[in-house]
Amino acid sequence: MKSSGVDLLLLTPGADLFYLTGFEHGHAAERLLALALRADGSATWIAPVMNVPQVEENALAGEVVRGWTDAEWYLPALRDAVKDARTIAFDDEARSAFLQDVIGAAPHAKVVGSGQIMRRLRLLKSADELAYLRKAAAQVDLTIPKAIALCRTGRSEREVDQDLCALLRAKNPDGAVAFTIVASGPNAALPHHETADRRVEKGDVIILDFGTRVSVPTGGKHGGRSHIYGYHSDITVTCCAGEPADPEVREVYRVVYEAQQAAIAAVRPEVACEQIDRAARSVIEAAGYGPNFLHRTGHGLGLQVHEAPYLKSGNTELLEQGMVFSIEPGIYLPGRFGVRLEVIVAVGQNSAMPVNAVSAARLPTAAA
Amino acid sequence: MKSSGVDLLLLTPGADLFYLTGFEHGHAAERLLALALRADGSATWIAPVMNVPQVEENALAGEVVRGWTDAEWYLPALRDAVKDARTIAFDDEARSAFLQDVIGAAPHAKVVGSGQIMRRLRLLKSADELAYLRKAAAQVDLTIPKAIALCRTGRSEREVDQDLCALLRAKNPDGAVAFTIVASGPNAALPHHETADRRVEKGDVIILDFGTRVSVPTGGKHGGRSHIYGYHSDITVTCCAGEPADPEVREVYRVVYEAQQAAIAAVRPEVACEQIDRAARSVIEAAGYGPNFLHRTGHGLGLQVHEAPYLKSGNTELLEQGMVFSIEPGIYLPGRFGVRLEVIVAVGQNSAMPVNAVSAARLPTAAA
Repeated sequence: MKSSGVDLLLLTPGADLFYLTGFEHGHAAERLLALALRADGSATWIAPVMNVPQVEENALAGEVVRGWTDAEWYLPALRDAVKDARTIAFDDEARSAFLQDVIGAAPHAKVVGSGQIMRRLRLLKSADELAYLRKAAAQVDLTIPKAIALCRTGRSEREVDQDLCALLRAKNPDGAVAFTIVASGPNAALPHHETADRRVEKGDVIILDFGTRVSVPTGGKHGGRSHIYGYHSDITVTCCAGEPADPEVREVYRVVYEAQQAAIAAVRPEVACEQIDRAARSVIEAAGYGPNFLHRTGHGLGLQVHEAPYLKSGNTELLEQGMVFSIEPGIYLPGRFGVRLEVIVAVGQNSAMPVNAVSAARLPTAAA
Repeated sequence: MKSSGVDLLLLTPGADLFYLTGFEHGHAAERLLALALRADGSATWIAPVMNVPQVEENALAGEVVRGWTDAEWYLPALRDAVKDARTIAFDDEARSAFLQDVIGAAPHAKVVGSGQIMRRLRLLKSADELAYLRKAAAQVDLTIPKAIALCRTGRSEREVDQDLCALLRAKNPDGAVAFTIVASGPNAALPHHETADRRVEKGDVIILDFGTRVSVPTGGKHGGRSHIYGYHSDITVTCCAGEPADPEVREVYRVVYEAQQAAIAAVRPEVACEQIDRAARSVIEAAGYGPNFLHRTGHGLGLQVHEAPYLKSGNTELLEQGMVFSIEPGIYLPGRFGVRLEVIVAVGQNSAMPVNAVSAARLPTAAA
């Protein structure tokens, strides 16, 4: 904070606060619950009075807990917390109404995003963090064959999704299913399709993009763990209900697979993020599908499903050992189908270290 | 917008945007997807290029869809959208990093919260909205006897929670479980306890606070429905594993029940929100438990679990027919137990109209 010129870091329940303190709370909503950390090391927690015991259980010795009642509301506590701060770093993921209140409470302060302080801390994963990420990765890896088998002709995306979620919950009873996308047929041409009622048809391509979150034990005398924070997995598998109906599917799959392999091969410390994107994109462009690769090649993974670093054109940031991210090129042919293959890698000493299973070199098929 | 002096309303996927447009999207995260609506009625959607087909499917004739690529990122599109706007109302629930970007893109504009425009629209529920709220309410009502029966001695809060979620999912296969709190024994003294591994002991009080969300059909050619928006239910039941171990439980239950009845009886148009809080609080204060009622008496319910109006001291806003909110007084005795009883009511012509089942007049008990 001192080197960034930030006097006050103000965090609400979320990934940043969890990273620093292990504190979890899932019910704060419109009531401000925040840690106000000063550059001199002093700290005050602002908490609804009904959450004070939960915060006190987590606060360190010397940290002040300032409770507020619904009748008083949180503005007086917030004004006290920001007093005299010249530069405030405020939680990037908090609701914007809170940022409006912070700006109102400190009209003369400069307010920046918490990423200013937290990004660097969270960017390189420790051995413990990597172990959690591998644990989550193993959960999704182990479901792949069963997940593919779910994609039978006649089943709706939502039915496949329900069964997939049940598989993931069985592998991860202490954690959570973080997200799922089941996109079949022409819906697979939408990278961020919302799982729908469409039924799988014979020969359809199906994209399955899913992830879990593993909990980090935090303990406490109330034994509460909301499982709302933790380390994520994220994988994308593309498969087909029987033999592909569209004659271009196998060729597109081959190109995406080669693009993914090229990107993985390019990973090592000191290479720019955009070079990894370039490695994948070059293969896809050379095959004539450049305009159909609709997104960046990858994103960091950790306490959030999307976090730094981002592997995209224009990002000249250099890779460092300990970064963890997805490699997920895709080709999307509108109205027809799409193929995306996603794995997670960590940057090792000289190369990419796989965090989860490698993508299948050939299109997997479910019974039609 | 004209009467509020707002030139531009900028909304991201969430309750406000859903209310106005029916648009749902659950995967935008750090990529800005927004509707920029001008006071003259013109509108531009800002969307990641990969989401453009999903947005176009929802956009009205004449609305512009401005796609952006990961390489370009969203700032140029955002700068275009806010150009010349003097007062911008920005989504209260969006991530604060987006608000930082809006302020950066329009440094001379005044930026206010979207509530300035949206609060009034969402405050009074239409007949259709009330029907969705009743549908959700029926789902939780029908689970009450089974939910109480789950609270047997020896079962952990988390086990009770898993079974409760399964019950709720069975009642609401097209929607979602919005939230659950299972708080047993001394944990019930924490109004917003995080469900934990503690096992129910004989004579424990257990607070069950839970809600569902029913989907609103939105259709579209991709058939996508994320079920992330919809109308909520919210109920709190307090029960006991056999006969209460603490001799004060039945008396506290009686006081909370009477406080709730007093608040419900006070509901009618033109009464101030704070008067409903006062009606409940007076009963609890008279019984000597004033300092143990740790929160307001209620909150509005609709597309969000907590929304306007808030029934609390200091809120002089007058009730109007069509408002829907919870009535949920509680008494919390630290280290011992708590009792909270929550129902949802709508403001009718002259009185409160129950939206869900009334609370039990006497403490319900599960087999010990």
